[in-house]
Amino acid sequence: MKSRLHSFLSPRSVALVGASDRPRSVGGKVARNLLAGGFTGDVWFVNARHATVAGRPAYRSVDALPGVPDLAVLCTPAATLPALVTALGTKGCQAAVLITAGLEALGDDGRRIDITVLEAARASGMRLLGPNCVGLLSPKHGLNASFAHAMGTAGDLALVAQSGALMTALLDWAAAQDIGFSHGLSLGNALDVGFPELLDLLRDDADTRAILLYIESIVDGPRFVEAATAAARLKPVIVVKSGRAPEGARAAASHTGALAGSDEVYDAAFRRAGLLRVDTTRALFDVAETLARCEGLAGGRLAIVTNGGGPAILATDALIAHGGQLARLSPDTLAALDASLPSVWSHGNPVDIVGDAPPARYADTLRLVLADPQVDAVLLIHAPTAIVPAEEIAAACLPVSKPGAKPLLTCWMGGEAVRTAAEACAAAGLAVFETPEEAVDGFVDAVRHRTLRAALAAPRSVAPVPAALQAELDRLLTAARSAGREWLSEAEAKAMLAACGIPVVATQVAADETDAGRIAEALAVPVALKLLSPDITHKSEVGGVVLGLAGRDATEAAARSMRERVAALRPAARLEGFTVQPMVDRTAGEELLLGIATDPTFGRILLFGAGGVAAELKADKALELLPIDAVQASALIDRTRVVRLMAGYRGRAALDRTGVEQALQSLDLLARAVPDLLELDINPLLATPAGVIALDARIRLRIPRIRPES
Amino acid sequence: MKSRLHSFLSPRSVALVGASDRPRSVGGKVARNLLAGGFTGDVWFVNARHATVAGRPAYRSVDALPGVPDLAVLCTPAATLPALVTALGTKGCQAAVLITAGLEALGDDGRRIDITVLEAARASGMRLLGPNCVGLLSPKHGLNASFAHAMGTAGDLALVAQSGALMTALLDWAAAQDIGFSHGLSLGNALDVGFPELLDLLRDDADTRAILLYIESIVDGPRFVEAATAAARLKPVIVVKSGRAPEGARAAASHTGALAGSDEVYDAAFRRAGLLRVDTTRALFDVAETLARCEGLAGGRLAIVTNGGGPAILATDALIAHGGQLARLSPDTLAALDASLPSVWSHGNPVDIVGDAPPARYADTLRLVLADPQVDAVLLIHAPTAIVPAEEIAAACLPVSKPGAKPLLTCWMGGEAVRTAAEACAAAGLAVFETPEEAVDGFVDAVRHRTLRAALAAPRSVAPVPAALQAELDRLLTAARSAGREWLSEAEAKAMLAACGIPVVATQVAADETDAGRIAEALAVPVALKLLSPDITHKSEVGGVVLGLAGRDATEAAARSMRERVAALRPAARLEGFTVQPMVDRTAGEELLLGIATDPTFGRILLFGAGGVAAELKADKALELLPIDAVQASALIDRTRVVRLMAGYRGRAALDRTGVEQALQSLDLLARAVPDLLELDINPLLATPAGVIALDARIRLRIPRIRPES
Repeated sequence: MKSRLHSFLSPRSVALVGASDRPRSVGGKVARNLLAGGFTGDVWFVNARHATVAGRPAYRSVDALPGVPDLAVLCTPAATLPALVTALGTKGCQAAVLITAGLEALGDDGRRIDITVLEAARASGMRLLGPNCVGLLSPKHGLNASFAHAMGTAGDLALVAQSGALMTALLDWAAAQDIGFSHGLSLGNALDVGFPELLDLLRDDADTRAILLYIESIVDGPRFVEAATAAARLKPVIVVKSGRAPEGARAAASHTGALAGSDEVYDAAFRRAGLLRVDTTRALFDVAETLARCEGLAGGRLAIVTNGGGPAILATDALIAHGGQLARLSPDTLAALDASLPSVWSHGNPVDIVGDAPPARYADTLRLVLADPQVDAVLLIHAPTAIVPAEEIAAACLPVSKPGAKPLLTCWMGGEAVRTAAEACAAAGLAVFETPEEAVDGFVDAVRHRTLRAALAAPRSVAPVPAALQAELDRLLTAARSAGREWLSEAEAKAMLAACGIPVVATQVAADETDAGRIAEALAVPVALKLLSPDITHKSEVGGVVLGLAGRDATEAAARSMRERVAALRPAARLEGFTVQPMVDRTAGEELLLGIATDPTFGRILLFGAGGVAAELKADKALELLPIDAVQASALIDRTRVVRLMAGYRGRAALDRTGVEQALQSLDLLARAVPDLLELDINPLLATPAGVIALDARIRLRIPRIRPES
Repeated sequence: MKSRLHSFLSPRSVALVGASDRPRSVGGKVARNLLAGGFTGDVWFVNARHATVAGRPAYRSVDALPGVPDLAVLCTPAATLPALVTALGTKGCQAAVLITAGLEALGDDGRRIDITVLEAARASGMRLLGPNCVGLLSPKHGLNASFAHAMGTAGDLALVAQSGALMTALLDWAAAQDIGFSHGLSLGNALDVGFPELLDLLRDDADTRAILLYIESIVDGPRFVEAATAAARLKPVIVVKSGRAPEGARAAASHTGALAGSDEVYDAAFRRAGLLRVDTTRALFDVAETLARCEGLAGGRLAIVTNGGGPAILATDALIAHGGQLARLSPDTLAALDASLPSVWSHGNPVDIVGDAPPARYADTLRLVLADPQVDAVLLIHAPTAIVPAEEIAAACLPVSKPGAKPLLTCWMGGEAVRTAAEACAAAGLAVFETPEEAVDGFVDAVRHRTLRAALAAPRSVAPVPAALQAELDRLLTAARSAGREWLSEAEAKAMLAACGIPVVATQVAADETDAGRIAEALAVPVALKLLSPDITHKSEVGGVVLGLAGRDATEAAARSMRERVAALRPAARLEGFTVQPMVDRTAGEELLLGIATDPTFGRILLFGAGGVAAELKADKALELLPIDAVQASALIDRTRVVRLMAGYRGRAALDRTGVEQALQSLDLLARAVPDLLELDINPLLATPAGVIALDARIRLRIPRIRPES
């Protein structure tokens, strides 16, 4: 049995409440759109004051309708919504599109209406799209239940947009470009149905080959990632997420009223879910088209065949700029090309077959290069010549390409001279581009999509938390948890890390000045002395950290003056003693930063990057959603710049990367064992050729909210 | 009197040598193009075997021509070129376009032909375009002396392209887009005329408003910069330079036979010359159009007025991603908007005037925002609505904008629904874009161009090298120069720096082991010991650097074993002693890299970036052409990441930026005083809060080539 949500895709009957004859009204526009689309199901108009709308009989109320509509479309004032939703739900209507806007302008009244409407829908099980949305359309079913200007043709792309302005603009633009849709759905304020429900729905929709999303913000991150992952396993899901820049995010917050997380977290969530993120709304369509035409892509190595050196250089530039890979032709292919091409050919990839090449030379070259096992795809770039018409070249090349096989992408540069050739290739199912740069962009996106899909298909194993470790961690947390203490002490934090297998610099607790001096003497190396107080988190601000102390006397004296400073600066703080640890030479390796943070939308994330006092200024970090496995931990490291310094170079052996990867996985384990871990900071984790060691650590717990007794 | 080069722009008569009736020949295509364009001057065809071509009488030879052509176009085989150029030059022909290709395929014969042709042209003063070029066209004069498919309409853009394939493709594309040209010139192999000559020519051409360049490589860098600077002072010069990526550069080398410098140097040269570099050939045209429509731009602060939140967020994202600046509206403007807009407006920039705003609201808002002194330009973004036709909105907005005043950019999103509005704005001279991202790209380019122009207009002062400094530097170089020695010793290099005012760590020369020990004892701090040998440049490779030696005995012992190592590893090397210098704490600041390198195309360049042993891995450097002034030195620092670490942060005061700037200017002085300075490396220049100090320096001189006696 299909869910009620299916009525958003293929209703058998539609009732428009608020249908109107006024030409410049939303109700009038939707009414005309519903009639113009050729929808074969029942269309009923409801208008309280007029007996006819658009020359059809109109019903005075929902109750007067001759049947139960699968889908209702509401364009009436906000205040009417609660009663209408109740009446429609009671009648058995499956789903409603609330086009009605302006609820925000009503302030508290608007919020009350929202709540009442949602409760009414929940009571009957009816599902809601909107309010404040443009509506929906489904060209295959002739259904245009929106106030968009044009429905466009039927196609296999589904578009879900969180901005009405974007939706109308994209639909109007797509209609002019003859881009076909399976469904277009405007999310509006997403009072009930949001991205997850629509992703579930479109994932299983046989008419939809690819799903295009315009996102401003997500409410329930984990639910979104779950639905998006399930959809992306089955078909391409391509996304534009706006509010990238902090300024943009602020605009988003004021626009949707939702608190947006940082853009890097969205990036990580999309990557985890296998969604292909693009930068512009145009790219949504371009990429969807390219993916359909590059289905046989099995790797990232591109060969370029061209009749012009300049275009080949532009293509190569674009490929390298995007981190793509120029195929290295195999010796066999090179020999075969040497035998078949004029002597002045480029003798490598890009394969420049020279200006006025005859059509057969194009076809022969493409055949050879496509057959090279070191080539995953071929881009043909043709610039018009005076001698051979482009359409003859296209005709010669088309038989070379097989559907579903290694992709042949084509770039026909120019205007009138190449139009016929480009159209012939497009009709034959090849990817067709106007410029070398656009062709390479398309190829790079196809490779990126392939990589994302492969990651989704890879087996992921999350090792359970060993019982002994769980018990040890719980034991270490007992004090803080029972005291309702937010921050762990440095010693507690390091003990937690050590329990998970992350080497930490040994930290001894000294009860007083004498004890500190004794410990320093026993260590017999220079030490770092820090104060120990549950009330002081930023120790260095009160002179609570002194480095490089040598011997008993110096340490004791430093501890004494530290106590005096704290007494003067923070008289209320409890000083429970000191910690003493051996100094570590930080120049022996790189200071790294490992951390866990909690994103309001997507939950806990893992950070990795360059560390040290100036970590923020270095702005060199990457992040992943938790949990992570070994492959993801390794990829996380590779997304930073500091990874280059971790490899060996003149004067320094390679640092212990395995140790860093293990530390990341230990943090994953720790996060799973400690669900109330809110923040964690290891800065620095010193990585040297000999190993890794955490020199400082901070851990913050979520304090349970005290609930009023019931 | 106009130069002969003017015959490339507006010849009174054209002779085509190699004119043909064969439809698929270059000579046939050029002949048909010459006749089809409507050229009103004389057109003469030369064909050795046929009495008519294209129904016109053809002349058997150049000598048989009825007059002296201003311009000759040659499509004949390579071997015929020398005699033809001689004959034409002797006759008094001003200029010739050599379309003939394939000289490379002839190997040494081709090179011989090149030389003979050039000598023949030099003898008569005739100027040459090509060979291996597509030709030239000048739509205003009805002149199409090329084998491009379409000439297109007359316009005010001049295009100069170094790739024939790009040229034909761009011309064909531009014709389909109705983009007009003043002149199109295909450079080919640039045997005679290159970019500098054409830049000089087009700079003074009244028909040309903007110059578009497609560059693969430059031969004479300084001459190019000079001509480009002169042109960019008068009109926009927009450039695509391919061969950005190393792979691309390799392709360029094989394509043009010219050795291409690194892309960063090209970037610096374009910046210095005031050229606006763009990434794609399409952007050449888009940017030229935008600049024409944003002439009143006086700053970088953009205000956005929109009827949709989503598009505004996309625009803001794009603006911030490009480093652009969102205007902060003044309190007066905010108050006026509060008074005129519905209460739910966005109360800031972007100014969201809400969905179905009536036309008057658009116009009123634009008027207020354009008048704000804190706004330099306004972008209007409109998404279609059901209620108000876009053309009514455009009609209301158009009177608000004044030509030459603060720019109003418009983005009409959609297709059919906004077509009329977009066309009306374009006709009125406003910048019109299809998407918010493209609009912001256009704005950012206009701002970038304004900044470049301002830099060209800024006064530049280059202080002369003081005579005393010049004498001192020459004295310090006497030994190396007279010995024909390439590398200066470390002591010599540091003395050079010190003479220019760059603080260096004091380095004392020790004649032998005992002397080294004595110096170390006298310094009374840990020292660095290095070997002193004119034969060993990379000292650390032979264990020739030992750090942190304390006292006489340790230093003497280290020197002794260093001598033994060198004797074993490099028995032939002369060991002239040792250098001893006090150790410096490198953790007290940042290790920077300052350097001078010599680019094969553009000459000497100045580098600045992060230093230290891992400098290359940090990949954090910027460069400028020499000479530089104080403003350019400061901007150079700002183009690196390490500049963020130079400002103060938690635990460290700001480093001595002034000292770094002065060191850069000292290097500028040094480079001017020492014309044979080929390479210089200060790594590191340690910058601390207290000052800067050069810890190591290498200087390499250009050794004069020994010329055979004549």
